[in-house]
Amino acid sequence: MNSGDEATAYGMLFTDQYQLSMAQLYYRTGLHEKEAQFDHFFRSYPDYGSHQAGYCISAGLEWLLDWMAEAHFREADLDYLRGQKDRNGDRLFDEAFVGWLKSNGTFEALTLHAIPEGRVVHPNVPLTVVQGPLAMAQILETSLLNHLNYQTLIATKAARIRHSGRGKLLLDFGMRRAQGRGANAGARAALIGGADFTSNVGLSHVMGLPAKGTHAHSMVQVFMALGGSELDAFRAYADVYPNDCLLLVDTVDTLRSGVPNAITVFEELRRAGHQPVGIRLDSGDLAHLAVRAAQQLNAAGFPDVSIVLSNQLDELVILQILTQIQEEASRYGLDADAVIDRLVYGVGTRLITSAGDAALDGVYKLVAVCENGAWQPAIKISETPDKIPNPGHKRVWRVSDQRGRAVADLLGLYDEEPGELDPLVLRHPSEPTAQRSISQDRISGLESLLVEVLHEGREVYERPSLEAMREQRDQDLQRLYPGVRRIMNPHHYHVSLTQRLWDLKQESVASAS
Amino acid sequence: MNSGDEATAYGMLFTDQYQLSMAQLYYRTGLHEKEAQFDHFFRSYPDYGSHQAGYCISAGLEWLLDWMAEAHFREADLDYLRGQKDRNGDRLFDEAFVGWLKSNGTFEALTLHAIPEGRVVHPNVPLTVVQGPLAMAQILETSLLNHLNYQTLIATKAARIRHSGRGKLLLDFGMRRAQGRGANAGARAALIGGADFTSNVGLSHVMGLPAKGTHAHSMVQVFMALGGSELDAFRAYADVYPNDCLLLVDTVDTLRSGVPNAITVFEELRRAGHQPVGIRLDSGDLAHLAVRAAQQLNAAGFPDVSIVLSNQLDELVILQILTQIQEEASRYGLDADAVIDRLVYGVGTRLITSAGDAALDGVYKLVAVCENGAWQPAIKISETPDKIPNPGHKRVWRVSDQRGRAVADLLGLYDEEPGELDPLVLRHPSEPTAQRSISQDRISGLESLLVEVLHEGREVYERPSLEAMREQRDQDLQRLYPGVRRIMNPHHYHVSLTQRLWDLKQESVASAS
Repeated sequence: MNSGDEATAYGMLFTDQYQLSMAQLYYRTGLHEKEAQFDHFFRSYPDYGSHQAGYCISAGLEWLLDWMAEAHFREADLDYLRGQKDRNGDRLFDEAFVGWLKSNGTFEALTLHAIPEGRVVHPNVPLTVVQGPLAMAQILETSLLNHLNYQTLIATKAARIRHSGRGKLLLDFGMRRAQGRGANAGARAALIGGADFTSNVGLSHVMGLPAKGTHAHSMVQVFMALGGSELDAFRAYADVYPNDCLLLVDTVDTLRSGVPNAITVFEELRRAGHQPVGIRLDSGDLAHLAVRAAQQLNAAGFPDVSIVLSNQLDELVILQILTQIQEEASRYGLDADAVIDRLVYGVGTRLITSAGDAALDGVYKLVAVCENGAWQPAIKISETPDKIPNPGHKRVWRVSDQRGRAVADLLGLYDEEPGELDPLVLRHPSEPTAQRSISQDRISGLESLLVEVLHEGREVYERPSLEAMREQRDQDLQRLYPGVRRIMNPHHYHVSLTQRLWDLKQESVASAS
Repeated sequence: MNSGDEATAYGMLFTDQYQLSMAQLYYRTGLHEKEAQFDHFFRSYPDYGSHQAGYCISAGLEWLLDWMAEAHFREADLDYLRGQKDRNGDRLFDEAFVGWLKSNGTFEALTLHAIPEGRVVHPNVPLTVVQGPLAMAQILETSLLNHLNYQTLIATKAARIRHSGRGKLLLDFGMRRAQGRGANAGARAALIGGADFTSNVGLSHVMGLPAKGTHAHSMVQVFMALGGSELDAFRAYADVYPNDCLLLVDTVDTLRSGVPNAITVFEELRRAGHQPVGIRLDSGDLAHLAVRAAQQLNAAGFPDVSIVLSNQLDELVILQILTQIQEEASRYGLDADAVIDRLVYGVGTRLITSAGDAALDGVYKLVAVCENGAWQPAIKISETPDKIPNPGHKRVWRVSDQRGRAVADLLGLYDEEPGELDPLVLRHPSEPTAQRSISQDRISGLESLLVEVLHEGREVYERPSLEAMREQRDQDLQRLYPGVRRIMNPHHYHVSLTQRLWDLKQESVASAS
């Protein structure tokens, strides 16, 4: 796509056609400026098949805000809408509506609350709440979902991979397997959720981080094709990067050629006063090769250089590699924990695509319309009770138990104060008989999760730094019980309704049926 | 991301750090302008778990060319590189190299051959061949893979879904579940591979197509929240879009409310001289509901309005829906084929993410380096013979049998003429004993697949229109035996080497081991 088309494809028209169709209908029926509320939430955790998430990490908000601030209907966009025809050849969008879009087609009247990026989040909890004139709140849907669904999906995957790798250095290498320009959103989300660095140069620049990466097989191949050797290639690398020497050792034969050649170069570097950094393994039995490479490196006096693993890693593969190292290390006279402690993970495809479940099912549902100054709950009936959204203007609290652990997220009406309800009743969102009561003396905290981000279009949000998002993520993860954090069959975390919200939901369903 | 950062993140720095590390090494060792050849190919068809691809559809080239034409190192990009430090605090990229990038860091010296977009392609066949100065050919890798892997993945998925839906109208609805801005590349690829239209407004504009879409549940909910009814909402819609009236009928109850209300509105439209378009089903048992809705619509005298199906569709789900309709239709007095003929498919998440296999494993491998005017093959050894790339400067032919069906793609050396070899020997790429011979009188065609796209940076390619790509796709698919096209356990298509290329590969492996 050339840069002229990019302005078209990534601007205000970065939306679905039906948003515009509905907006015109609201305009024609006089509903376009009626105040409405949409909740954005996801319905279920990612399920990767053989393993499942028990929490998600929210991400994507900042880039959504940037998009909202810049998007507007350019004359070229309006001309495209003017040119759209219905099946009879008549204009699909009339000039009055196009004129309204030209004057009013921005997000300047919307108020937005959100759970900040980096926080642990759960299904059916509003992550974003949009209030404002119906037409523009509706048009926002597609872009909001696009920005928030994917980054939340990837931040979650990154958190899981980091957990599986015991918090050791994690690098995102996914750019080449991402969905085109989605690579940048994916890398950012990975950095929020669990990756320390990314190989993506431009995105690192934008995030204020150094980009990470060393060399590919092709560098060794070039030297060999010109009559040289792997050792020549390694020496050339060490010469150019004496303080950053990390060598990919599997172009020819890892244990018979790559690691011995790396050791030769590391010895030369050390004699010249430099500290070698490490080796990278990108094929074969990574667990076995890590143990054997560690053995060779130790024997040569390099017990501290890193061993970077890459090639189709994910949280389950890493778990298996660590298990295998724990079994194999002692056979080669090594301490398994020492081997594991020197590992670094380079994760590409399976991180940036969230392999196993490549989409978060985030939705954006109308939950209330303001009529004569009062919020009227809006309801969507479904044959599956789980899929009926929780109606009305709401708030969200995180309930902590006496140990300070988060035990439930509670949805209630905006004017409720759950701290004043003793006992606090937590209702299951759809099962009438499932509820529990907690007395206030067993509650150590009731944290309100949604913060105001846009007040009638004006940003009133102090954007957290990447460092702050990561600290928040670590705090939130620590507050979960370990069973909720585990990567397979996680323990179920409760998302509950207050009694008043439950009652409102039942009434709304009854009146709509 | 704000627009200033976008210029950084989507420009020349849209690459992996190691490409720049290697480029500097080549610069420092004087290899940076040595002519090299990289082949881009994928190793295996997408495997979606319960179903597998037997072919792919190439896509992404045009946007890669646009990116290559515009990307260059801006002063801000060079400053970022100047600021990068090694572990000792010294500059990672020295000023001489940065200066070289400033003057020479474009793709103007590269020659590129490719298999055009819309063509059927197979594993291990070079889809793109890049020749030119080593440093810039290396830097291109990440962006090339990013542009081509994803679009080829999605064009393939779209072709399969179209096949499963018997070529009926297919709409892409995936924008909200795509990887951020990757939504646009995904929609484009879907349009090349099998979708007729997309809901993505901006991308439709760029592609010169109308965008498609009607309304969401929220529109009905708004009317209901304000004291109105589903019928009121439908009437308003018909009033605004009398010639494009397609109604979503599952907000309340599909068969008891949605379809009857739609019929009421359709009757009113018909009396006013308009032709109603259709209904959309987005939840529940889509096969059963399609049959029952068709029954109600037929009884009301609307046997021709479309029934659009959406909600987690893919090629397998569609196959199952059609099977179920064939079983159920007669029970309700309907002709199954007539029901199937009026279906339209709106496919979102599972198309734009290629659900089941969310990444194509396309790679970019050094296969030759030019030394003293002659191409020296470059080899990469692997313990897995399948993973050893085919070395050298090559060409690719598609071999057709006496029936005009494509039976193999043949890789040979650039100076070979397989039409002159009788019998033509087809060698398996890695199995020494697997080969077959075809006499020339049983060959109806030997089509050369790679076309020159860039000649030393100058575009010498006549970009095909979307329509031309789709025609090529249909022709190529028709030339496959049906067993290769089927969506589960497809028949294996042969990719073979000429005897000379086989011999070169063996020699290269032997000399590198």
